[in-house]
Amino acid sequence: MRIAQTRLSITTTPRQIREITTEVARWTERQRIATGLLSVYIPHTSASLLIQENASPDVRRDLDAFLRRIVPEDMSLYRHNDEGPDDMPAHIKSALTQTQLTIPVADGRLQLGTWQGIFLLEHRASPHDRALILTLIGEEVPSSA
Amino acid sequence: MRIAQTRLSITTTPRQIREITTEVARWTERQRIATGLLSVYIPHTSASLLIQENASPDVRRDLDAFLRRIVPEDMSLYRHNDEGPDDMPAHIKSALTQTQLTIPVADGRLQLGTWQGIFLLEHRASPHDRALILTLIGEEVPSSA
Amino acid sequence: MRIAQTRLSITTTPRQIREITTEVARWTERQRIATGLLSVYIPHTSASLLIQENASPDVRRDLDAFLRRIVPEDMSLYRHNDEGPDDMPAHIKSALTQTQLTIPVADGRLQLGTWQGIFLLEHRASPHDRALILTLIGEEVPSSA
Repeated sequence: MRIAQTRLSITTTPRQIREITTEVARWTERQRIATGLLSVYIPHTSASLLIQENASPDVRRDLDAFLRRIVPEDMSLYRHNDEGPDDMPAHIKSALTQTQLTIPVADGRLQLGTWQGIFLLEHRASPHDRALILTLIGEEVPSSA
Repeated sequence: MRIAQTRLSITTTPRQIREITTEVARWTERQRIATGLLSVYIPHTSASLLIQENASPDVRRDLDAFLRRIVPEDMSLYRHNDEGPDDMPAHIKSALTQTQLTIPVADGRLQLGTWQGIFLLEHRASPHDRALILTLIGEEVPSSA
Repeated sequence: MRIAQTRLSITTTPRQIREITTEVARWTERQRIATGLLSVYIPHTSASLLIQENASPDVRRDLDAFLRRIVPEDMSLYRHNDEGPDDMPAHIKSALTQTQLTIPVADGRLQLGTWQGIFLLEHRASPHDRALILTLIGEEVPSSA
């Protein structure tokens, strides 16, 4: 059993639902862990993670529209508006999605489903440099399952 | 420290909130890991996972009604309607619940609370064969905590 | 690679969003794991976990107001009202947030972001003794990443 850990940096555009599958998969495959678990962690409170359908851009647009509908940028609804109308909605949208994901690894590769991608959701109305922490635990030769 | 991994197949009925605690616990207990972490992963984008109250069937009905209320099957709300009115709502309901769960193991057993069960949520209006990936990491003799 | 596990007990006040970062970090740091993953698990169905902004108390108030708005305590909406108007909303609010969190550890410390805290959300209208299960897997000397 072995552990590997790294930090990635991702630059986002405003309100971006950005696929990060390639970056995460590339680092994972380089670690030569055959069977294991990958943890993806985002150390931010106004951006979050999600595993979602990655074939259709319409899915991302509909997801964004849904989140805006249930978490409107209406400053009269919130006390915490220090950084503008997108400030508190960004925290709530983060709460409704994920700060951390754990994904199985088999045969040295992420076991995402056919239609699954890993996404970083930028909830702020401005671009940001976002960090990701990847931690992989596993063994180099698979156990007999 | 040891790792074990398997795939389970679960056949769902339309819009089913199906308890899978027995299947998951049975496999976990057979691995003879005393202290560890179990990861449950669903490689689908229109079905998801949840730990929820498992004593009352009314809880499942109320949870289903809540999800339909905030994610209505109204095709005018979505661009992505390729597979019908339940298509995009299934992706959004998956985003609001879980694709992955990590559950502690102690004394060789899942440490679910008294009222907790593990559920697979089928968000589509048709039956499906769904896969689950279980990964268990831990040690055969417990460490002194 | 080593694993450590413990149970903590947290006493909540009604509808409290209680920061538990100090309790979780203190136990983690005592384990002398340099690089690893910490799992935080709550074995309850009417209280949950969340990583959220911890600088402004207004964020907690706004999050609470949001959850009450989308999950109203209106008994006509639910069949499961055995324990009063806060009963079923507590299960739904738990479903929308987290039962489990996995947080990376580096240099022997939790890798929370600058503004992140770990919170226990008490969704019931009465105080409770809540359990938490902490499981830490990692190695004492960091691997070369």
